[in-house]
Amino acid sequence: MPSKTRRISEFELIARYFAPLAREAAGALDLKDDAAWIESRADAQWVVTSDVLVEGVHFLPDDPAELIARKSLRVNLSDLAAKGAAAKAYLLDLVLPATHDEPWIADFVRGLAKDQVEFGVSLIGGDTASTPGPLTIAVTALGQVPTGEMLVRSRAAADDDIYVSGTIGDAALGLVVLRGGLNRLGAAAQSYLVGRYRLPEPRTVLGPKLVGIANAAMDVSDGLVADLGHICATSGLGAVIEEDLVPISPAAATALREHPALITAVLTGGDDYEILFTAPGTMASTILKLAQTLNVPLARIGRMRPGAGVEVVKADGSGREIDTPGWQHF
Amino acid sequence: MPSKTRRISEFELIARYFAPLAREAAGALDLKDDAAWIESRADAQWVVTSDVLVEGVHFLPDDPAELIARKSLRVNLSDLAAKGAAAKAYLLDLVLPATHDEPWIADFVRGLAKDQVEFGVSLIGGDTASTPGPLTIAVTALGQVPTGEMLVRSRAAADDDIYVSGTIGDAALGLVVLRGGLNRLGAAAQSYLVGRYRLPEPRTVLGPKLVGIANAAMDVSDGLVADLGHICATSGLGAVIEEDLVPISPAAATALREHPALITAVLTGGDDYEILFTAPGTMASTILKLAQTLNVPLARIGRMRPGAGVEVVKADGSGREIDTPGWQHF
Repeated sequence: MPSKTRRISEFELIARYFAPLAREAAGALDLKDDAAWIESRADAQWVVTSDVLVEGVHFLPDDPAELIARKSLRVNLSDLAAKGAAAKAYLLDLVLPATHDEPWIADFVRGLAKDQVEFGVSLIGGDTASTPGPLTIAVTALGQVPTGEMLVRSRAAADDDIYVSGTIGDAALGLVVLRGGLNRLGAAAQSYLVGRYRLPEPRTVLGPKLVGIANAAMDVSDGLVADLGHICATSGLGAVIEEDLVPISPAAATALREHPALITAVLTGGDDYEILFTAPGTMASTILKLAQTLNVPLARIGRMRPGAGVEVVKADGSGREIDTPGWQHF
Repeated sequence: MPSKTRRISEFELIARYFAPLAREAAGALDLKDDAAWIESRADAQWVVTSDVLVEGVHFLPDDPAELIARKSLRVNLSDLAAKGAAAKAYLLDLVLPATHDEPWIADFVRGLAKDQVEFGVSLIGGDTASTPGPLTIAVTALGQVPTGEMLVRSRAAADDDIYVSGTIGDAALGLVVLRGGLNRLGAAAQSYLVGRYRLPEPRTVLGPKLVGIANAAMDVSDGLVADLGHICATSGLGAVIEEDLVPISPAAATALREHPALITAVLTGGDDYEILFTAPGTMASTILKLAQTLNVPLARIGRMRPGAGVEVVKADGSGREIDTPGWQHF
């Protein structure tokens, strides 16, 4: 079924915009073929993940094309990082409304090009299609781990310490700002929080270094409590988070001083794209050293324990009620 | 941004419907993790491809869920087959309008389950999202080839014979039937043609056997002339097709007798999902034997030559004008 005619054909689109993104991947064959091959190594195996983003659901309609592109890629890079995999390549399925013209595509590709340099990945394939609906972007990313060493959610041990990288809750508060909230916060703090919502910083340097250290790991995308809940469920354990150990940015701390109720958004809001992992207590000094070497903050926030579910304990020792533990995709 | 609430959560959806599709793939971790690992082999490498299908663009809104599912998977399996790769696994990004409820999803999954058995593949990952737009399905499929042996478009040699599997044009004529045309054709012939449009039969048995035989290969999805044009362009050659050698099904032959002008639709219509390949003349008897062994019709339809572009020669030796060589994705 022929769809709307565009000023630029799919072949021109690929040749002009997407093929340059595939230049460094031999197996991508300049995107002139039906598939790509990926290298085979004796000591490593491939890890694959895919995330789809829909306009109005996962990003705002007026978000800049460059940011949408980078976010689409980065949420996948974050998954790979949390599995201990070094990202290498990705496929892009770009489903475009007629309103997204060539200049928009050029901006989108510019975003991808920037992130390819920053994260050392190449486009190796994908597809484009037109849609009468919203912009929809599916990225499938591939990374490598030492064979048999992929970090999983299910291997947490009772008594493991629980760690998280960076700070938690910024993206959730950024979304509050975008919706007109937190308007007494300074411009710099607002801008920082919105930036954390709009553009994840996947922990691609940290992730592969956690192989051999972490027992279980995942990235925080659904919200800290929900995601720790996933580790608990798959590991057959419970967990307790000490609320005052959860790392908070200065901007988030200011927001929380004004609106203490936002602590729920911080703990459950999602889109942090930090790595949540568990490790035996014997790894504490190794983890401290790693944080220093990589210059990535790593905070111990609690402990795994027998049982089920996540308990959040406030500074005064009482438990915090969490009604909706995190993002539901539907 | 929380979207519409469904009767079933994403986690239940995955556990109930999709996890069973991943049961046989150890690396899929029951779809309880953020990524999947795939096996590493010394003698083989992975081949990756991705295709996205949009309701109203690639399939009809009232097509049955089972067929949509199978088509989404099969167009990818066809790409892998044409690259000589044995399909092993796939990731599914399913973007669902609110109108597609749990019974629809159950039907969709039933279609995938059938094809997983038929083609020996497993679901290993993906994502689900809701959309205010049309149903959109992105599948990324992975297959294995002997290392360094992936079949490509660009290695046709001047003087290679050109072959195609099965029959050409059925899907294009099936679409004509669906649009109310060819109504004097018998019901059985109509049904056959529509079936060929709705449900591709990827040449998964043939494809891997062409490694070591074919110089260049691809599947026919944009239309025979356009796709041979891709082989010509990437190989830096031209090609001539002898029209009366192009294999036509009995149903298509009947349709062409009544409407000879439909020959253009047959040659350029697309959606055939047959394998188009070139091979040196010295392979002729090997190819004949292969067709017999596999019980897959393989027809020699022309020859590569120096130059550029695809010429179609009619039975009387005159050239056929082809205005629009094939499907434009936009």
